[in-house]
Formats: sequence, C-alpha cells, structure tokens
Amino acid sequence: MCNNLLIAQSGGPTVAINATLVGILKRAKVQKEIGKVYGARYGIKGILSENIFNLEHKLQDNMQDILLRTPAAALGSCRYKLNSINSSELEYERILNIFKKYKIKYFIYIGGNDSMDTVQKLSEYFKIKNINDIFIIGAPKTIDNDLFGTDHTPGFGSAAKFVATTFKELDRDCATYDIKAVTLVEVMGRDTGWLTAASALCHSSDTYGPDLIYCCERAFNIDKFLNDIKEKVEVKPNVLVAISEGIKNSDGRYISDIRINSEKDMFGHKQNSGCAKYLEGILNKNFPFKVRSVELNVLQRCASHLASKTDILESVAVGEKSVDLAIKGYSNVMVSINRCSNLGFYEVDYGFVDVSDVANKVKTLPSDFIDSNGVGVTKKAISYLRPLIEGELDITYEHGLPVFINLFNS
Amino acid sequence: MCNNLLIAQSGGPTVAINATLVGILKRAKVQKEIGKVYGARYGIKGILSENIFNLEHKLQDNMQDILLRTPAAALGSCRYKLNSINSSELEYERILNIFKKYKIKYFIYIGGNDSMDTVQKLSEYFKIKNINDIFIIGAPKTIDNDLFGTDHTPGFGSAAKFVATTFKELDRDCATYDIKAVTLVEVMGRDTGWLTAASALCHSSDTYGPDLIYCCERAFNIDKFLNDIKEKVEVKPNVLVAISEGIKNSDGRYISDIRINSEKDMFGHKQNSGCAKYLEGILNKNFPFKVRSVELNVLQRCASHLASKTDILESVAVGEKSVDLAIKGYSNVMVSINRCSNLGFYEVDYGFVDVSDVANKVKTLPSDFIDSNGVGVTKKAISYLRPLIEGELDITYEHGLPVFINLFNS
Repeated sequence: MCNNLLIAQSGGPTVAINATLVGILKRAKVQKEIGKVYGARYGIKGILSENIFNLEHKLQDNMQDILLRTPAAALGSCRYKLNSINSSELEYERILNIFKKYKIKYFIYIGGNDSMDTVQKLSEYFKIKNINDIFIIGAPKTIDNDLFGTDHTPGFGSAAKFVATTFKELDRDCATYDIKAVTLVEVMGRDTGWLTAASALCHSSDTYGPDLIYCCERAFNIDKFLNDIKEKVEVKPNVLVAISEGIKNSDGRYISDIRINSEKDMFGHKQNSGCAKYLEGILNKNFPFKVRSVELNVLQRCASHLASKTDILESVAVGEKSVDLAIKGYSNVMVSINRCSNLGFYEVDYGFVDVSDVANKVKTLPSDFIDSNGVGVTKKAISYLRPLIEGELDITYEHGLPVFINLFNS
Repeated sequence: MCNNLLIAQSGGPTVAINATLVGILKRAKVQKEIGKVYGARYGIKGILSENIFNLEHKLQDNMQDILLRTPAAALGSCRYKLNSINSSELEYERILNIFKKYKIKYFIYIGGNDSMDTVQKLSEYFKIKNINDIFIIGAPKTIDNDLFGTDHTPGFGSAAKFVATTFKELDRDCATYDIKAVTLVEVMGRDTGWLTAASALCHSSDTYGPDLIYCCERAFNIDKFLNDIKEKVEVKPNVLVAISEGIKNSDGRYISDIRINSEKDMFGHKQNSGCAKYLEGILNKNFPFKVRSVELNVLQRCASHLASKTDILESVAVGEKSVDLAIKGYSNVMVSINRCSNLGFYEVDYGFVDVSDVANKVKTLPSDFIDSNGVGVTKKAISYLRPLIEGELDITYEHGLPVFINLFNS
C-alpha cells in the first residue's frame, strides 16, 4: 500500500525552513493515512540519487524543539531546476520510479519560486502519466518574501528582524563619534527590496534609524545618491544608509555589475564585491568625510538566535497545513498565508494557491510602500512589516551558545 | 568643596562599555564622598570643548537597566590622543581648568590602551603641577582583549559570543549544499587574534566549527594557505575558515595592504577591502570550487542582543571597582580583572594595575594558544575563552526589537 510521505527542502537556507519541517512531522504523526515519513537529502537531487532515509528513525520527537531553532536546511538543500519534460523525460521517470519504490503517496517540497517550478513540472508529468494517487504540495520559504499567492513567506520575518535589530545596533554604533561619517549597509535582495525596507522598522523613540533607504524597485541614480548624501550629512553628522544588493540603474543594469566590469582584480578576475563597496568608492572620491560599507551577507538568512516568534510559529503552521492539503487530495498547490484584514490586529489563516500562480514569478515591493523621493518607506510598508518581526523564541543555550540539530553529524 | 565625579568614554564602541558606566553610577550613588556626577560627551574631546552635563539629570535610575543592554558609547566617544605635555601644555591646562570649574575630584576614563595613555599623561601633568587631590582611574574596555594587566577586557566576551554564535550558524549554512565550497570569514583584530580564536568555541557535538583558523600572531603564508584549503576540501565539501583581519606575511606586511597596493579602483583610489576578499580572489584563481567571503565587520562590537552575561556583569563590577579605587585615593591605575586559578571553576576578582604597565601596549595571543600547524587553537585557548561567553541577558524587546537608551535623542 502506497501511503508514505516524502519531504525535501530546496533553495537558499533560512531560519524558518526547519520549523516547517517540524510542522509537517508533527501533523504527519497524528494522521493515520500516512505510513512512513521519508526525507530526501539535498532536495530533488537527493531523490534523483536515491539519497533517501527514514526521517522518524533519524529524528526523535524530543529533538523537534531544537530543530525548530536550527537554521539552514536540516535535510540539506539544492539549487536544481528540472529541465522540461520533453527534454529530460528520463529524469522524471527516475523520480517516479523512486516514488514507487518507496511507496510515496505524498510529497512535500519546501522552497521558494524555483522550487515551486519543480512542484509544477512534477505534477504535470504525473498528470501526463495518468497518475492520480500521488499528491504534491509546495510549502513556501524564502527570506526574500518575493512569492506571489501568499501575504508573506516563512523565513522573511526572521530575516527582517535580524536586519532591523542590526540597523538599530548600527544606529548606536554610528552615533559614537562627532565626526562626519557615512555608513552604507548592503541588505540581501537581488530582485526585491523587502528586506531592505525592513531596516526602517528600527525607527522609534530611541533610534533614528536609516537616514536613506534604497530599494531595488526604484532605478538608482548615482548623481541623485550623491546629492541625497550631501544633503543628509549637512544636517546630521552620522548618516546610515540601507541599500538593496540588487539596485539597478535606469537601464536595468545592476550597480554591482557596473563595478564588476569597471574593475578587475590583480589576476584579471572580475571582482564580485557588492554595490555598497562600489558606492563607498564613489563617495570617497566625491566627499572628504569617512565612509564605510557593511555587507550583512548570509548572516541575514542564518541568524536563528534572533528568529521572529511570529515567523517560526507560522512556519510550523504552514508545514501542518501542507500535510492537511495532501491528505485531502490536493496536489500542485502551495500553502499560502493570508492576512485577515479589517480585524484591527494582526492575524493570519492558511490556504493554498495553484503553483502555476507562484512558480518562476517574483513579487516586488508595491510602489506605495516606497516614499515619493525613493529614499524611504511609507507608513503602509511599516504597518505591513511590523507584525512579522514580533516575538522572540526561547533559545536553548549550552555553554553560551545556541544548541542545534545536525542530522548528518559525522 | 571639590568632590564631583566626571566620567567619559573613549575608543571603539563595545557592547559592554555602558555596563561599566552603569557600575560607576550605581556605586557613585551610594558613596557619600561623591557630590555630583558629570559626563563628558565624546571623551577627552568633550572635556576640552566643555561638552559636559549632569549625568544624574540626564539618566534616571530606572533607565540604567536598559543602558546596561545598549551597545556603543552612550556618552559618545573619541579617538583622540593627547600630545606630550611639553608640546601641548595649553591643552592640559585647559583640562585642569575645566576640572576646577566643575569641582572634579574623581575622573574615570573608560577605554582601551590609547585611552590609558590619556589617563597616564593627565596623571603625569597633575603630578608635575603638584595636584594631589584629583584622582584618575582607567576602566578597561575593548573587544580586542589586547590589554596587559587584566586577565581579559570588558567587551571582549560579548564580541567573542557573537563571533562563536555566528560561526555556529554559518556552519549550518555551509552544510546546506553538497557542492565543494569555501567560506572565508574575516574577524576583527588588527593586531591580535583573540576574537578569531573565539570562533573555535562553536565546535561541539552538533557543530564541526571552523576547519581552519588563522590568527595574526602567526606569519601568513599564501602557499601554505592554498595547500591547507586544498587538503581540507578533499576531505570535507564545505570548508569554513576564520581569518584575523590583521594577518601579515613573514615580512610583517598586512595581507590586506598587499591587496590595497596591488589594486586600485576605477578612480585610482586604493581599495580598502579586507584580507578575506583578497584571499577569495586568490582561491578563485587557483581552484574551481565556489568561494565566498564574509566580513563580520562592526556587528561584532555592537550586537548587544547577544551579549555575554558574564561580560556584562563583570563590566558593571569594573565600573564599581573604579569608583572604590578613586575614593580610596588611588590614581593613575586601571581596574583589572583577575581570574582566580586553581578553583576548578571560573571566578574572578577585581584589582588594579599601574597604567604605565598598560598604556600603548598590545597583548597578543600566547603562542601556546595556537596549534603547531598554525591553523587552529589549543585546548588551553578554549579553556581560557569558554567562561567569557557564558550566560545570556534578558533583553527587553518592544515590537520585536531590543530597547535602547539614547541620551542625546533629538
């Protein structure tokens, strides 16, 4: 009897992807319809290479609480996109055979928009093959918050909390000296400015917050930037700036690519420093004051000690919902988080969307989230973002450091 | 009657410098010998410019608990070294007049080895002038842990906890994919490898930790580095490397300077990227696998949400001790933290050292803290470092973010 569940994780790591795994495991345990629960290591690549293991054997129930607080993908992940069915049918056949071998009835793939492409293609292949008894569900995750069909994505709230907290701390650091200085902080987001916008959350009675915020949804003009900086430095000695890694000029060319093409390193290689480092050079050329750049880098996606409780609890619920949908016979859908509007307070419920509405699409910041001058965010943006970073988890520390789960410790 | 206390903060920001300020305020409040408590804004520069204010007016007692958790220097800081008495006697005279004007009997300067130089010079000047009724105490702070005369420095434990936690999270992030990759992480420390060594603390049953650790106390050889990396990648797909920002070659030349002099940016400016970015380029030239570099940057010195409770409590005690010493008539001394050995557990008491034993000197990692191959640290180093990161503070969060004090909010 085919009634087993297979889970895999895909795409970039987040702080919340394991919380969704925990949600799936919790719900699967109480659902009689589900037999064994398998994990594939390294996403769809792990299915293709039959790197599959019994998850219940590997993960005792008492480890779930720690798994919830462990960053990155505990099962391992991949960045692997299936080719079209026409060009790679053997690959699809291989997956189907593995599913048959392990008697998989339910497959839940936790990932972002590229991973939803996998859900969609696999669903399509099964449909072509008239296989109606395997149910494939996508569980969203990405720190980029760029998925359509869901109010926000698991993983984003925690990354946003890290960004806002770090900006709050940097604000204090910047205020230390009485000399004119500019601090440029590069925030992740190659295509969208969601995380960069979250830097504004630190503005409060004790914190001025970033003086200028540049999201990649608006064309970045270097002359305007120089003027913005000049104006700010005149009224405030320490200027703190948030910049999306993916800012582009009016031709749609990445600012970081302009740098890459202008400079080569001593070996003739292109340098892959980010846009903040590039802009640091430009400011240094134009102004006498001190300029430094900070790249928040991968810390944004793995700082689980600063996870948003809201994000983690929702991520668990997304995992639970994915199991419920699979058992009810849904397939080729992604779990969605829906914000209940008009309540006067923040509350969500969980639904689903057709994967074709999500896969390979990118949801950018709405234009009314960015202020008219393109250097800050609106109250509407703050209202949207604020609830997502609320709450802190109790972290288990041992000898001064958070405790994690490492399923493949060797 | 001259019985007032003046406090100032100096040098680079840390997470613990305000905890020492809290300790001073707490103890000053219960000491009848002390009249008013003044603060100088921006260190010794604030004294010279008479930027002095009544601290008790500015800071109510109920704000101290939040001040304890606020990073960077709440009073503002400076990097200002007094010239010699001979060449700048007017400056010293100015300070003395300000002291007289505000009836200062006690002056406590919180800072690192440059700040202790100020304590020393000022003490010397007062001695020359036969002024025996002003008492000057240095309270140590620096994330670099490079001060002589004290087992360790306030601020270091919290920075070390941030570094070790971040390495632990990066270890999980690195393990995500099954492709060969190297992650180079640059840790602060221009002259010493204390913080870099702290990365090793994350090694535990759930974490492999950094595979290679390069402290700046050992000459850095690029050929050896390439070989180290090559060997590691062969046995472990994801290699995590900790590197001191201040690594130097056998000629004592900073590796980051080699980069600076080899490359100029598009404007002909020298680039001030760090050594990790430079080494990323070298690895990319030599190996086919993925290489990325991460600079922990100023986050190391301002991530107060991850402060070490041990560090913060000790920093408060250092502040208290500095008041006690001043009242007992000590001057030109720095408070020291002494580790009580042979107890079988970690305990410290507080003493003092002559500032001349501390000022302008740099305490590097002992050679028996670094392993024989120069790519890791010894058990002795771990035993020394471990207690310093123990314990977590209860952080006050409001709307998902830590609450801070901003004394000069405007």
